[in-house]
This record gives sequence, C-alpha cells and structure tokens, in this order.
Amino acid sequence: MKQIAILGSTGSIGRNTLRVVEALNGAFGVAALGAGANVSLLAEQIERHRPRVVSVNDEECADKLRDELRARAITARPKIGVGVDGLSEVATCDGAEVVIGAVVGALGLLPTYRALEAGRRVALANKETLVIAGELMTRAAAASGAELLPVDSEHNALHQCLRGERRHEVKRLILTASGGPFRTASREEIEQATPAQALKHPTWRMGDKITIDSATLMNKGLEVIEARWLFGFSADEIDIVVHPQSVVHSMIELVDGSVIAQMGVTDMRHAIQYALTYPARHPTTLPPLDITACGRLEFYEPDTERFPCTALAYEALRAGGTMPAVLNAANEIAVAAFLDGRIKFGSIPTLIRSACAAHTPRPVTDLETVLAADRWARAWVSAQITSDVRGQLSVVRG
Amino acid sequence: MKQIAILGSTGSIGRNTLRVVEALNGAFGVAALGAGANVSLLAEQIERHRPRVVSVNDEECADKLRDELRARAITARPKIGVGVDGLSEVATCDGAEVVIGAVVGALGLLPTYRALEAGRRVALANKETLVIAGELMTRAAAASGAELLPVDSEHNALHQCLRGERRHEVKRLILTASGGPFRTASREEIEQATPAQALKHPTWRMGDKITIDSATLMNKGLEVIEARWLFGFSADEIDIVVHPQSVVHSMIELVDGSVIAQMGVTDMRHAIQYALTYPARHPTTLPPLDITACGRLEFYEPDTERFPCTALAYEALRAGGTMPAVLNAANEIAVAAFLDGRIKFGSIPTLIRSACAAHTPRPVTDLETVLAADRWARAWVSAQITSDVRGQLSVVRG
Repeated sequence: MKQIAILGSTGSIGRNTLRVVEALNGAFGVAALGAGANVSLLAEQIERHRPRVVSVNDEECADKLRDELRARAITARPKIGVGVDGLSEVATCDGAEVVIGAVVGALGLLPTYRALEAGRRVALANKETLVIAGELMTRAAAASGAELLPVDSEHNALHQCLRGERRHEVKRLILTASGGPFRTASREEIEQATPAQALKHPTWRMGDKITIDSATLMNKGLEVIEARWLFGFSADEIDIVVHPQSVVHSMIELVDGSVIAQMGVTDMRHAIQYALTYPARHPTTLPPLDITACGRLEFYEPDTERFPCTALAYEALRAGGTMPAVLNAANEIAVAAFLDGRIKFGSIPTLIRSACAAHTPRPVTDLETVLAADRWARAWVSAQITSDVRGQLSVVRG
Repeated sequence: MKQIAILGSTGSIGRNTLRVVEALNGAFGVAALGAGANVSLLAEQIERHRPRVVSVNDEECADKLRDELRARAITARPKIGVGVDGLSEVATCDGAEVVIGAVVGALGLLPTYRALEAGRRVALANKETLVIAGELMTRAAAASGAELLPVDSEHNALHQCLRGERRHEVKRLILTASGGPFRTASREEIEQATPAQALKHPTWRMGDKITIDSATLMNKGLEVIEARWLFGFSADEIDIVVHPQSVVHSMIELVDGSVIAQMGVTDMRHAIQYALTYPARHPTTLPPLDITACGRLEFYEPDTERFPCTALAYEALRAGGTMPAVLNAANEIAVAAFLDGRIKFGSIPTLIRSACAAHTPRPVTDLETVLAADRWARAWVSAQITSDVRGQLSVVRG
C-alpha cells in the first residue's frame, strides 16, 4: 500500500483526493493530513483514514482538534503540528511517497518545496507554487529526482498527451480555455461586468477567485506560466485555444503536424487519481466520457483585445525572474477588490499592468525573493485602489 | 540513410510515399519498387530514386520497362522481377528496413507475408492483408520480431494514441467514421442510391471501391477487423463513432476514463511519414492543423439500421477463421456490381449477409486457406447476382 500526504486536506482538492483514495480500495493509505482551521472535518478525516501526522493553523486549532478527537474516542492519536512548520512535517512525513499540494496561496510554497527537496512525488493543485516559484521548485525537483505531477485538468491533460513523446519532437502545447462567462460579451459589457455575472462559469464549478480568473482569462495566463515550468516549454511554444465545451482538456502539436488531445469529463478526481497512480492507470468508477453526448466541440482563437490578462501573463513570463510573482499577487488583490465591489471588472487588467510596469524583475534565487516581490505587489496594488480618488478604477453607477 | 521498399509504387500510396521520401531530404533511400503495368511511371521513379530491384506484372511489362529505361538512357539498371515472385523479391530485398505494403487486393498478401517473415518493418496500407489474413500476418510478425505499422489515418491515429500506454490499461479503441455521403439520408434513399451519389465522399478523396465502402460504412467494419489484428483488441473493445469532420482521426479510452485522441489534416503523407520514421517524428513541410478553422466537431453513434455493413463486419470478426475473408470478398464483388449498375446500393449488405450465412468458417492455417475462402465467396456472390432472375437485387427503375 502506497502512503500519501495531503497539504490542504479539508479543501475541495483534499476532500476529492480522499474520495479517490477510498475508491482505489486499499491501494493507497493516508500517512499525513495538513489542514487549516476546519478542525471538525479534519477530525472526521483522521477517524476514517488514521494518519500518523496532521497539521492545523495554530495552537488554538490544535487544542480544538485534541478535544474533537477525545470526543470521538479516537485512541490512535496522530502527531499534531501547527502553521507552516506543521505543514512541512506533513509534506516530509516518513513513508509518504506522494504529496498532494493543495494548500491555497503562498502558505503552500515552503511545504511543497520541502517535499520536492525530500524527493517525494508532488501532485500539485496549487497554482501559485509554480507561477511564483516555478524556477525554484523545478530546480529542487531536478536535484532530488522528485516528480512534479499536475492535478489541474489542463496540465494533467498535457502530461497525458506527452507520455509517449520526446521533448524535441513536441512543437507546442495548446491549453484549452472555456472562455468563461464573457466569451461572447462585448468589450463594454466586460468592462462593467458585476461579480454575480463574472461568477457564472459555464462548465466548471470552482471557488470565487479562480472563477473570476476564468472570466478574465487570467487563469489561462497563469496556466501558461505553470506549463512553462512543468514541461520546460518557452512562452512561444505554449498557446491558448478557446474551447467552450471543456471536453478537450488540452492538446499538444508534434513536429510532424500530428495533434494529440486528452478528453474527459469535468471531474477533478480523474486528474487526482492519475497523479496518484502514474505511471499506472487504475480503473475508475466515475462515469465515462460519452463523446456522442457532448454536442459540438468548438475551438476559437483567444481575443486579447477583450481579454488582455493572457497577454499580461505572457509578458510576465518573458520578463522572467520575480515578474510572474508580481503578476500573480497583483491579480489576487485586484480580484478581491472586484469581488468586494471596490473596483470594476475592467480595472483588474489595468491594475496588473501598472504593477508589472512599476516592477523591475529580480532573479529568483530563493523563496524569500519571490515572497518579497509578492508582498510588494500586494501593497502596491492595494495602495492604488485606496488612492483612487478620481474613481477611475471603480464601478460606474447608473 | 535507411532504405525502403515499396509494394505498389505507382499507386496513390506509393507515389505519396516517394513524395515523403523526397521531403525527408536524404534520411531515406529507395532500395526496391514493386509496380504493376504502369511502366512509364515506374521508369520515371527508377530514374529519380535508383532502386536496385523492381518488379512489374509480367514479362511483357518487363520488356516495355527495359525499352523505357534504354530510351531514358538510364545506365544503372535495376534487377527486374515479375508477378508475385517479383513483388516478393521487392519485399525481401537486401538492406530495406521498411516495406510499404500498398498493393491493392489479394496480390499483396504473399509479398507482405514474406516481408514480415524476413523481420522487416511493414508499413501497411493494404486493407485486405489484415482483414483476410490478420492472424497469419501477426503470427509471422511475432515470430520474426517484425513491426507492423498502419498507414491509413485511423489506425495510424490509434498507434499514436497508444504510444505512451500499456495494453491492459486501454479499455477500448474508438475508430472515427466520416459517415459518408448518406450520413443524413433516409433508409429508402440509401437503398436506391446511385453510384454517382455514393461516390461523393464528404472529406477524403479516394478510389471508387473505398469510397463506396465509406458510403456503406463497410470501410469502418473492415477497419474494426484490421484494428483487432494490429493492436490485439477484441471485437467488444473496438467501437465506431461517426465524426463527419474527420479532424479526430481516432481515439482510445483508458481504464481510468481518460480519452486520448489524435487529430490532423486529411493528408495521407502524415501517416506514411509516421510509419517510416517511427519511433522518431520528423518535421513536416505540410500545412499544420488549424483547429480554430475546423468549425464544429461533431460525434454521433453509428446507425446500424441504415448502415448494416458494420454489424456484418463485427459478426464476421466474432465468427473468426475464414469468415472475414468471405466478408471482404463478398463486399468486393457486390461493390463492383453496384458500380456497374447491376445491383442496387441496398443489395450490397444483402449479398454479404447471404455469403457469410452460406459459409462455415475454417481455421486460418495458411494463406491458401484464406485464398480459397476468398475465391469461394467471389464465385458465390457472382452467381447470386447472375441468377437474380426476379430482379430482387437490381435497381428499381422508377
């Protein structure tokens, strides 16, 4: 039985990972679980999966967890760590061969880095890790021989397409994008879109932040940066194609003109299972793709006029160093401000563009360098929003 | 420089193979060329590619070829063989690593068999070879370690999809079918279709026989049988999906629910090049697939009510032994009679069904066994057509 550790066990990816572990019926065991403040769900997961090491946000959560475990009369108590050190212990826990990296945001960086240093296979669901620190992560993986496997559907699809191919015979990667809720909207409509409109994703149900990223297409821009680090392709070798049905999860084009595509249903458990069992493929109990029930599959060029965020991501990737970290942080602050009703949808790319323009990228030598760039961008964008005295960024009423 | 031999050099596949060899710019040389009666084109090919061995239909063609070579003042004259022996010499010619099997009909059987016995890679474009003698061919290939690579777009696509996968992790093969010119026609319209209507193929330009096979969907039935031998999947593990745009050339479904598809433009040179250079992929000068220019991709269940030929092929494959040879021969005679205006389109499956019902399959022990079944079916179906005194098979003149 292979052992796994989950960073972020109470989130959506974490919970789905545990469902996959159960469906795989004894092939995988759970060595360690890293959570945040959702102590009662973690206690339930401990009762069911009996990990040896767990982690929560802080000492207060740890105390609550101890109470919960007592109340449930769980005798085999796991070791309980807290904060980023606790997560790092989960990530490097003895005997765990696969670490699921599903902690949202910058908190996941160090534990993921530690897992790669320790030579563990990391099944990565946290976008920021590669966007802001891809260079460091891939360097650590190369040094220890750790494998880095993507859990999001697009990169997982690319990984599958690349299985039988040799790097120098692959011409380009083609990431598919649903196009989001504003695929057919006019520039003006997009500019003034409300959070309610932007949160209506056509094909995937996800958290608010990533749903807005899908609406701006920044999600796809960030995925271009991830793909660069996961697969070693340059910005010029990674393209985006809008595919509203999300049936083709991504494609590769070979030098001989052949295109290989991966398709599937939109359920993240497929990608999670693939990352756990790779190179083996295990049977699934999930419903299969019925391609004859998919209707028509369409493919369009992305429109960078209406959706400038992807172009900003390409520019940040080309600028290199700490620039993608700034792009990512600026986007996070701008999206949060949009969701709070403080800025209009159209100001998201405006703010990111200004933040990147105001930043001189530095080489990524260590985690602290990227975290400093991240902090700078957050502060800079927040200040722009606060000082928007003329209301140029904010929503036009009426 | 790798050397190749072409069985059927003056046909469509043969000519395209030579174009690919030229485009590959010195990577491949031509050791041997097997042709039929098109002596002047063969002479031109000899002048350009300087093979050491060639073959033509008979002594009369050989004399004509000698005259042609003299007239062209070609000094380095190749050895000239005739008939099936000549083709077998081409197929086993010293130094040829890859043999392109593109002779139409049963004539290609023995030379292809000889090439496989000799351990040569065979790039196979001749459908009959595997439909009627797949068991013998794969046995010969297994014994000598020869590789059998498909040159038609569907099987070539499957070969590409299977590159990175393990047999037991592949659940099924999914062959795509254009659906032919009668995809949306009614049963009655199909029943009474004329040769001119049946020859209008929506996506591929091919010879008459194969175009009619596309209209009846027998083409796809024959491909199911080929796929069984090429890849070792049972009839239950091979499905057909109608895909009118012919952009997805075929797909595989893995046990974990993932679907891998190969796409490309409809130019047979892609598959030919792949079979020559495999496992390497060489850059091509052919225009790439522009998926955003493909319009909508559609996928439908095949309709066995209106197109009974695929079901007949599945039945023949399940019956095994010499039954697929009977299916294939009955189809050839029926199609020829339809093209001659002697039977109606709807009688093609009727005749094939009766021929198969009248045949008791025998185990395929040698080539003579399948050739005897082939001869029997041709004679039997011809007799049915000739003795159709009540005109039940023939065209109803309105």
